[in-house]
This record gives sequence, structure tokens and C-alpha cells, in this order.
Amino acid sequence: MSRRFRAPVVLPCDPACSVLRDAVVDVADDGRITYCGPRAAAPDSAAPVTELTGILLPGLVNAHAHSPMTLLRGMGGDLPLVRWLNEIIWPLEANLRAEDVRAGMVLGSLEMLRHGVTTSAEMYFHAEEMADAVLSTGARAVLGGPIIDLPNVDWRAMIDAAARWIDADGLRFGPGERIELSFAAHSAYMLPPEALRLTGEAARERGALVQIHVAEAADEDQRQRAEHGSVPRLLDKMGLLDGRVLAAHAVHLSDEDIALFAARGVGVAHCPGSNAKLASGFARLTDLRAAKVPVGLGTDGPASNDDLDLWEEVQLSALLARLSTKDSTAVRAVDALLMATRGGAEALGRDDIGALEPGRWADFVHIDTDDFAFAAGLDVSDEQLLANLVWASGSRRVRDVWVAGEKVIADGEPVRVERAKAQEAAREAAARLRG
Amino acid sequence: MSRRFRAPVVLPCDPACSVLRDAVVDVADDGRITYCGPRAAAPDSAAPVTELTGILLPGLVNAHAHSPMTLLRGMGGDLPLVRWLNEIIWPLEANLRAEDVRAGMVLGSLEMLRHGVTTSAEMYFHAEEMADAVLSTGARAVLGGPIIDLPNVDWRAMIDAAARWIDADGLRFGPGERIELSFAAHSAYMLPPEALRLTGEAARERGALVQIHVAEAADEDQRQRAEHGSVPRLLDKMGLLDGRVLAAHAVHLSDEDIALFAARGVGVAHCPGSNAKLASGFARLTDLRAAKVPVGLGTDGPASNDDLDLWEEVQLSALLARLSTKDSTAVRAVDALLMATRGGAEALGRDDIGALEPGRWADFVHIDTDDFAFAAGLDVSDEQLLANLVWASGSRRVRDVWVAGEKVIADGEPVRVERAKAQEAAREAAARLRG
Ligand SMILES: [Zn+2]
Ligand SMILES: [Zn+2]
Repeated sequence: MSRRFRAPVVLPCDPACSVLRDAVVDVADDGRITYCGPRAAAPDSAAPVTELTGILLPGLVNAHAHSPMTLLRGMGGDLPLVRWLNEIIWPLEANLRAEDVRAGMVLGSLEMLRHGVTTSAEMYFHAEEMADAVLSTGARAVLGGPIIDLPNVDWRAMIDAAARWIDADGLRFGPGERIELSFAAHSAYMLPPEALRLTGEAARERGALVQIHVAEAADEDQRQRAEHGSVPRLLDKMGLLDGRVLAAHAVHLSDEDIALFAARGVGVAHCPGSNAKLASGFARLTDLRAAKVPVGLGTDGPASNDDLDLWEEVQLSALLARLSTKDSTAVRAVDALLMATRGGAEALGRDDIGALEPGRWADFVHIDTDDFAFAAGLDVSDEQLLANLVWASGSRRVRDVWVAGEKVIADGEPVRVERAKAQEAAREAAARLRG
Repeated sequence: MSRRFRAPVVLPCDPACSVLRDAVVDVADDGRITYCGPRAAAPDSAAPVTELTGILLPGLVNAHAHSPMTLLRGMGGDLPLVRWLNEIIWPLEANLRAEDVRAGMVLGSLEMLRHGVTTSAEMYFHAEEMADAVLSTGARAVLGGPIIDLPNVDWRAMIDAAARWIDADGLRFGPGERIELSFAAHSAYMLPPEALRLTGEAARERGALVQIHVAEAADEDQRQRAEHGSVPRLLDKMGLLDGRVLAAHAVHLSDEDIALFAARGVGVAHCPGSNAKLASGFARLTDLRAAKVPVGLGTDGPASNDDLDLWEEVQLSALLARLSTKDSTAVRAVDALLMATRGGAEALGRDDIGALEPGRWADFVHIDTDDFAFAAGLDVSDEQLLANLVWASGSRRVRDVWVAGEKVIADGEPVRVERAKAQEAAREAAARLRG
């Protein structure tokens, strides 16, 4: 049934980041937007109207996550990176069962929805369980078979499995096309060049996205850099950049790497919180943006962030860019908000999410403005309103969330899944993992 | 009436940051703590017991704020610093009336309480209205007459006024000694050396704290640095550092400046969020800590942060220290939490707040752990529990807050003041200021 949503403030997240006053969003039966604009200019409609009191904006896009790691949140987080991985994370992950991943993904999915994040790009094991988990909460995700070179696994079989899944279920499926399948290739340092080449080939044949970690820490990829000049150049040599690619982190890039990403249309998932917590370094955000590389924001896994609140990345992306460039105007509130919405969609190569525009999915978030953050009221300049939203409100007052026109968070609580049950399942799985 | 509070987890914020399981806090009639420790070891008591389900910890100490600037939140925040001050903030502040400051301070005080911040060190105009505002919400504050050299004001009269206020009302007053008076000297670049000398003298005579901005931006204090080597050296020459001093920001310090602060027992209010947003630079947090300078955390004013949520500074202090030192262990979760509590008290020269210990005021916060942040439950290692609190929960789940044993926030809402009325008063004041 088609519906109309009316709010005193609507942020379509168009490229200019317009602030619409007294505006409506019309949603068709199929969950897609048919109109977003001022009420005065809206088409005649007999659809039932949902009256909202605050700000309506697109659901945020988390461009890089390992959400099932909610189970490992806070474990060994004060260790240096390599010890943390070797002593804490990898031993625990070796014991992960499919049902653990499901419990962790359900919890992560609910956590993201509650923060107004409607889509996440995921890389983790047991991707089929992850798809089920996401379909159960009503969120939207880009995920797919993981590809990594480890002692007991066969990366060729992993590429095949990822490809077969797409061939069986299609690139997108589920109600409201909630799931997009992709190839989740870990990184150039955890895969041989031949695996990168074959992954790129399989993905291109199917029009699928390749997600891959690129140049996160200064001391990784040493062999690849010595041999090929840089990881982006290696990926390009292997033909991987000829298709759809989402590069996660992309911290340690040269000018040439950035130019290469721009030329090949590679998207970047910028993860400022994870990069700071793990001391990985400052990504060259302002240079990437200047080169017109599509940049979205990612939380990374909740074991290294430690939560899935993308609004924190919105703030951090601006704060860290300002510090590293010594320019308090380097990234404005509006720039950061657009990276978390429209920019994330672009980085994923998607034109059906991340903005409120006819044809896109009705994935949106209602922010309750009865809060200290908006104490000056809504009757302020567009700039001040956006600043209050980005800097002072963030996820605090996310009240209702819809995906493909379906309400999945109502007054802060999940609609489809009982939060207490999801927390209990995650608690049990985490306790078993700790042993 | 004396009372006992019982919780599954109590964090006294002792120097070791102990995690007490099944513990109690006893509070006497006068609002001071008489016992904090395991329930099994607690003295016999017939006092009524308040059973809490989550984590009990000391109220946070915001070591540097200009809270009435809630009225100006989000105005012109994407301008460079000097234009922002000249074009937006100073013209608006010139129109501030005492009742505006009251409305802004009430709102800021409620916002801090809701985030679990029970004490703030304040620098702003109309300090007597600020004291009234704080007394009305039930929070605790260190404030005092502002001292600044501006065209239409007389700094000598301001020093006298600040001193007379202390002589009239005492250094601390109000129920539960909620107000401490101090001298709020703006900075070395907004005051002549003679004013610094006389402020220090007046403060020392009365045992009062001097709050002062020090070395915030790279391009300020140029004249003072050229003439005296550094701002800390100028302050020392003027005798200011012989008394109680709280230096706000303290970003651009030399090794000698840090040694001087350590030798003189100067406290530092580290403001990572403000320093990042305004691109002021990285304070030398790990060096200050290594030199044993008492360091607390501050939000700075809500026009440049843009909120009064000190939990964000807890996270940022660790994130920025890790990035600037390239060491992911530079500041741990527990270090950051202690800076926001016990450390803030030390920086202010206070031994009666910032920790749950017999003799200190019963200023504490109850965190609801029925949340994604604590999905692994409370039955995890101390380290994981603290990580979940600091990195994933933060202010999100602050549920109840007490100051001097009096409940001032109940289930997230202010007890003494109606939030809607406070917001409305602030909205009206802000609208008038915008003109
Ligand atoms: Zn990752
Ligand atoms: Zn200040």
C-alpha cells in the first residue's frame, strides 16, 4: 500500500544537501520512493499520511563492517594490533560456528538499525548465515563469500563458492532486494596475486562488487609493495580494478594510488574510528575527495571500534581531517553527512540507496528533535540545523527506521526481532567462545 | 537519611580502576560516602537499600566548559576560527543578557547531568546567574568572576569583583557544597601580565583556583611567547603558578613547559574534541601523563564541540593519543575513564569528587547495561567490561544520576527542572540573540 510521510524537515541528501521544510516523501507499494520534496509541490495523493515531528533523512550506509564480531566486542582491545589478532581474535574466530555468526550478525544488524544505519557492507565467515540474519531483522546488506588464504582453506574453492551463490540466488534478492551478493576478498597480503586476478574475473563476469582491505596499516603489504610499487598497482595489474571495487581503509596511499583509484572508479570505505583506535594512521580523506574518489564511511568490526554507530565516524571523519590538515574547514558537517549516506552508496556502486529520490528504496530514519541537541529549535538556518544534527545529536535520537518502506525500528526498539532475545543469544554465543 | 546503593558492578575509580562485583555504596545524611566496597565486607546497616541493575561509577568531571554557549550551538561552525569568533560569536555574545546566560546554563547543566557529568569547571560572563542556574538543576560547578581585557571592561574591577564574591559567600557554598568559586582569567593574550600577577595574588590569598586558557592555538600568544619564551613561563614569572591553577587546552607546550607544570602542580584540562574541531592541534597527552601532570578532560563550549557529552572526550582522548603517537596502547580505555573522573578532580585540585571513596560526595551515575554495548553480559573480564563501557556504551545508557546523594536524573530525565521548560527558555533566548 502506498504511503506518504510528512516531516517539518526532510534531508534528501542530494549533492547540495538541501534542507526541505514541511516536506513529504511518497512511497509506493513496492517500497520505492516516488516523490520527495516540499509538500506544497507534492502530487495529489490519497495515500495515508504518517506525520513525523522531527527530521527525516536517508538511512546511513556503513561501507565496511564485520558485524558478527559483536560477539568479541571489547576483548583484548588494549593490546597492540598483532598481539590482539594472534592472541585474542584469531583463536576465538577459529571456534566460531555458523550459529554464532548468526547470533552476532542479528545483534549487529539490530544495533546498526537502532543507530539509523540501514545498509552495511560486510566481510566475514559464514556469509549465508549472515544473509539469513539480515533478512530476519529487515536491514539491508552487501555481503558474500569470503576469500582468504589460510592453512586449512582453499581460496580457489572460496571464489567458486562465492560465484556459485550469485549464480544460484542472483546478484540481489530478498524482499525489497535487501541482500546484494559480492566477493569479499580479504586483502593482497592474505591472498596470492592469482587469487586477486581470478576474483576480479569472476566478479566482472557477474557485475558483482569486490570488497577488499587495502593499505590499512603501515607495516602490512610489505612484500606486495616491494614487488609491485603499491597495493593499488598490484590490484590494477591483476585486472581487479576493471570491475566494481570497494577498498576498505585505504590509509597509506601515494598520489599515484589516489589517481589510479579515481581513474578506475574505485570506491573507498573510510574507517576513521578503527584507524585511530588501532593507530593505523590518517587516511588522506581530503585528497581522496579532491580527486573525486567516491568515499563512504565504515565502522570496521565492533571488536576494533567498538560499536556500529556510524554517526561516530561522521564526526571522526571531520575531526581527523581537520587535525591532519590543520584546517578547521577541511571537512564540513554537511560533507561528513553526505559521505555517510549518498557517498556510501556511491562507494558501493549503488544508485538505489543513500538518498531520498524517486526510484530509490524508501530506507529512511526519523530523528526526534525534542532534545538538547536541537534546543535552538528547527527554525534556524539550514547550516545550524545540519551542525546540530551532525555534531550534537548523532545517533542519540534515532527514533524510527524504515527499510524499503517497512518500519523496522519503532521508538528505538526493533520491530521484527525481540531485542532481549537477540542479546541473550549473543551473550550465550560469546560465553561459549570465551570458554 | 542515610542510604545504601547496591549494584552488580561498582567502579570506585581508585587509581587502579578496580572493578567491584556485587558491591555497595553507603551514603550519609550529609550526602557524603561512608563506605564503598564489596557487599560481603560492608558494615552492618539498617539504611534503606536502592537496588541497581547496572554499573555504578562516579559522576564525570568536565574540567573545562563554557556551558551557557548552548544558546549558540551550531552557529557558523564551519568557518575558520578567527572569522567564526569575529563574525558570529563575539557579536552575539555582546548582546547576551544575564537571563540568557541563565537559560543557557540551565540547559547546559541538564545536558551534562543527563550524560552523567556531575561537575563542570566553567568560564563565562554573568557568573552569578550561572551559580543560580547550577543550584537550580542540582549539578555541581566550579565557576567565578570572569577576568578579561576588552575595550568596555576594566580587568582590575573584575579581579576585585571575583575576590569580593568569595569573601562574601565563601570558597564553597550551597547544599552539598555544590558551588566552588574561582578566578576565571581568560588567557595571557587577553590580559596584561600585571592582571595575571594580581589574579594570582588574589587567588592565593583565598586558596582559590585560577582557571585560564593556555596555548590553545598555534598562532595565539605570539607576543607573549616572543617576550617570555612561553605562556607557562610568563604565568610562572607573574607568580600565578604558585597557587592552584587549571590550564585549559595546553596544546602547544615545550618539554620545559611540561616540566614546569609538573613542578608547580598545575592541572590541565585536555579538550580533544574542541582541539580537533577547530584544528588547534594535538595536545601532548602522553607526555603530560608521563610527567605526572594531573590531567582532566573538558568539552570546551558547546559552540565549538558541539555538545557537553564528556564521554566523547573520553573516547577522543584515547583515539587522538594513539594516532599522534602511532601506538595503539598509548592511552587505554581505563586511562581515559580515570581522566574523566578522578583525574578531572585532581586537575581541579579537589579531593572530594571524582571517585567513590569514604569522605567524598556521593556524586554518581547508574549505567543501564541492558544494551547492545554490554551484549556479552556483565560476567566478562574486568578489562572487557571497562572496554564495553568506554568504547561502546558511553553516555548512551546513563539512566540515573545523584549529586551529594540527591537524585537529579531519574530514568534519563531531570528531576528538579522540567526539560521541556528549560528547552523552551533556551529556544527563546537563542531566537532573540539571532535577532
Ligand atoms: Zn576490515
Ligand atoms: Zn575555553
